[in-house]
Amino acid sequence: MKVAKFGGSSVANAVQYKKVANIILSDAERKAVVVSAPGKRHSDDVKTTDLLINLATSINENGYDEAVFNAILDRYKEIIEGLTLDDELLKSISDSLQEIISLYRYDEERLLDALKSSGEDNNAKVMTAYLVSLGQKATYISPKEAGLIVTDEPGNAQILPEAYEKVAELRNREGILVIPGFFGYSYQGHIVTFPRGGSDITGSIIAAGMNAVEYENFTDIDSIYCVNPNMVKNPCALKEITYREMRELAYSGFSIFHDEALQPIFQKGIPVCVKNTNHPEAKGTRIVLERELNEEPVIGIASDAGFCSVNITKYLMNRELGFGRRLLAILEDEGILYEHTPSGIDNLSIILREHQLDNGKEERVFNRIRQELLVDNVNIERNLAMIMVVGEGMKHAVGIASKATQALVDSGSNIKMINQGSSEVSMVFGVDGDSVNRAVNCLYNVYFPVQEKTFQ
Amino acid sequence: MKVAKFGGSSVANAVQYKKVANIILSDAERKAVVVSAPGKRHSDDVKTTDLLINLATSINENGYDEAVFNAILDRYKEIIEGLTLDDELLKSISDSLQEIISLYRYDEERLLDALKSSGEDNNAKVMTAYLVSLGQKATYISPKEAGLIVTDEPGNAQILPEAYEKVAELRNREGILVIPGFFGYSYQGHIVTFPRGGSDITGSIIAAGMNAVEYENFTDIDSIYCVNPNMVKNPCALKEITYREMRELAYSGFSIFHDEALQPIFQKGIPVCVKNTNHPEAKGTRIVLERELNEEPVIGIASDAGFCSVNITKYLMNRELGFGRRLLAILEDEGILYEHTPSGIDNLSIILREHQLDNGKEERVFNRIRQELLVDNVNIERNLAMIMVVGEGMKHAVGIASKATQALVDSGSNIKMINQGSSEVSMVFGVDGDSVNRAVNCLYNVYFPVQEKTFQ
Repeated sequence: MKVAKFGGSSVANAVQYKKVANIILSDAERKAVVVSAPGKRHSDDVKTTDLLINLATSINENGYDEAVFNAILDRYKEIIEGLTLDDELLKSISDSLQEIISLYRYDEERLLDALKSSGEDNNAKVMTAYLVSLGQKATYISPKEAGLIVTDEPGNAQILPEAYEKVAELRNREGILVIPGFFGYSYQGHIVTFPRGGSDITGSIIAAGMNAVEYENFTDIDSIYCVNPNMVKNPCALKEITYREMRELAYSGFSIFHDEALQPIFQKGIPVCVKNTNHPEAKGTRIVLERELNEEPVIGIASDAGFCSVNITKYLMNRELGFGRRLLAILEDEGILYEHTPSGIDNLSIILREHQLDNGKEERVFNRIRQELLVDNVNIERNLAMIMVVGEGMKHAVGIASKATQALVDSGSNIKMINQGSSEVSMVFGVDGDSVNRAVNCLYNVYFPVQEKTFQ
Repeated sequence: MKVAKFGGSSVANAVQYKKVANIILSDAERKAVVVSAPGKRHSDDVKTTDLLINLATSINENGYDEAVFNAILDRYKEIIEGLTLDDELLKSISDSLQEIISLYRYDEERLLDALKSSGEDNNAKVMTAYLVSLGQKATYISPKEAGLIVTDEPGNAQILPEAYEKVAELRNREGILVIPGFFGYSYQGHIVTFPRGGSDITGSIIAAGMNAVEYENFTDIDSIYCVNPNMVKNPCALKEITYREMRELAYSGFSIFHDEALQPIFQKGIPVCVKNTNHPEAKGTRIVLERELNEEPVIGIASDAGFCSVNITKYLMNRELGFGRRLLAILEDEGILYEHTPSGIDNLSIILREHQLDNGKEERVFNRIRQELLVDNVNIERNLAMIMVVGEGMKHAVGIASKATQALVDSGSNIKMINQGSSEVSMVFGVDGDSVNRAVNCLYNVYFPVQEKTFQ
């Protein structure tokens, strides 16, 4: 049994709906289907979810922005007419939106959550109607019926452990189950949306709860690539990658998923398959617990700019019990997440995303470091990029560091930081933000010497 | 004006005393002299300080170990007779020891501190008498007279800030001032000894207080070497090294000083010169605030074994605000100092000296990490060695990392950790404990290709 999730672009209009239906019906294993709200039909388009957010913010005691309301309805209208479904469906969508507005008019947070969730909810209803119109046994399952019990925190729902038992019961249902992504219900009876990556969270929970053999994630790319296609031309596609490789590649260029979304299936070891709705013949990329290694130790190169290094020196730092802890406590207190902390004997650097020090925070943090830790010096180096070289094979290979550093030298990049030794499957390099493109290309050429090949 | 400190081996017997006097008298700038207690005369010898500790522990209500008492007196007797000084000097040393014993018989800690300090104190008196016998104007200055006011913590005295003003007044004294190392006086009037490296602490405080142009540290080696002479044959000697290079080389092989000892002069930027009492013509090694760079970016390679890596993995670790701080708080709570913390996305390692996890601490710390941080996994990798490659020139040189990693690969070492990016002047590599010797030799051959040369 498989759970298939379709992202916004896969359900953006009637043409896309037909592709989705073909995909669902081509494999009897695809029993549970999770759908997003209608996404962009073209690059200048507005996502239905964004329209719903605009509608929510337009609502006041005098009414709401009718143009926005109509724009939302138009999205469903286009789909319903394109699929020649019953007009009543559109009427019921319009009624349900009106109902949400009158119910939550005076509760801003609940109103936003309920309107946002309607994007997925109505799309699931339309998808069900379409599958039924094709003669299939298909059933809309509301998150309430599915058992998606969550915490009562608007916009930041967390699944409760008892949800999984209820979700498991869906296995006994017949036919195709269509479940809207993005939200659950709290014990207080409220619709509560998940944080970013919400539909993937739903899909992942459903797959974990139903103990699926595979979680299929249909989107608009053929596969995950070994490097960001915006940085390297025609990079090779990855057929299979492990969860921990995926996680180590978390710097941008690999942000197909929101990391939190995969936790439920990761914990059960269920494979994820990333596939293309517009090109379902492509094999996609499977994310698995373990994979067979081949001779290439490196599977991917991720990179991201916008980092900085806060460098701290203090004589005899290495003898001072508690220094590191007190430094990290200041960062925590200021809500700052950090990436790496390379250290010498009397010095320590904190690598973090630069924007976290905006709006006066830099000065405040520096003053606290000076005053509370009595350091000899603290300064900042800006405009750094991090490059992560990743592969399960690295733990058995010799000379990875030497090959990679040579490639970076050849690219003319100045290596500002090297961090290796925690993960067996990754190595991190810090370089000047300006040289990241050439650095990544040089590394790519070293580890993936043949262009346009499919990896494995 | 220079302050010269002579270590235990430099004042171990009459022959050494004569060398010291020659050194003092050969440079009129050598105004203040700090002496240790008589050290070992040969490798099987016992240091006077150790005899004094034995004497202290032998004392009970019935008396003390007379053999030890006499062995101590014999050390001074040999010196006094060898230099044909007045016999009364020996009598006064014997009387002063008896006085300490009767004064502190019932206070174990004070007794130990007072007896230990007598080793340096009596040696300073003998040295003064010897210089006077040579027709010099020389004066014994007790730490009390010098103004070495310290905290009242037996065996762990810390200098109080007001001491420096008093020490500065010594500049106005005429002739050669001979000051015993290793102890100061508390406001309560007690003799209190400094922690490890005590005579160097005294020398460093005197040099800082008197604002010396140089602090000379006379010991029994010609210079500091670029690598541990026990690991590489005839390594090149260092003529000049900066404080921060010295500090980054703090892993063993460079432990001529106890790091804390140099803090007072480091803060004033006073150069240290390491010289050999037995070979004063040798130029020694100067430790300075800044040095002129030459074409060699690397100045030294330090290494030490006995480290381990505690490796921790937790899914979404990089999103968890406060994870690092809570981990370090556990270590702090257990009194564990760590060296480095390399990190990936979902993993973090703590590199620390292995012995710190002895006596059941490993299990307790691991249990706390599991229970308090809810990690997915924690394990330990033992028998690691750390290698530190250091040099002020590294900040301007390209390709250091690539050259170093290639050398390590060529040596057959498996690189377990690389840490670069905090210090501009160092790079740390973790390798198997078993391969550290070959790794260091390979690095040495790469960075110091010509053997037996003097660096710079």
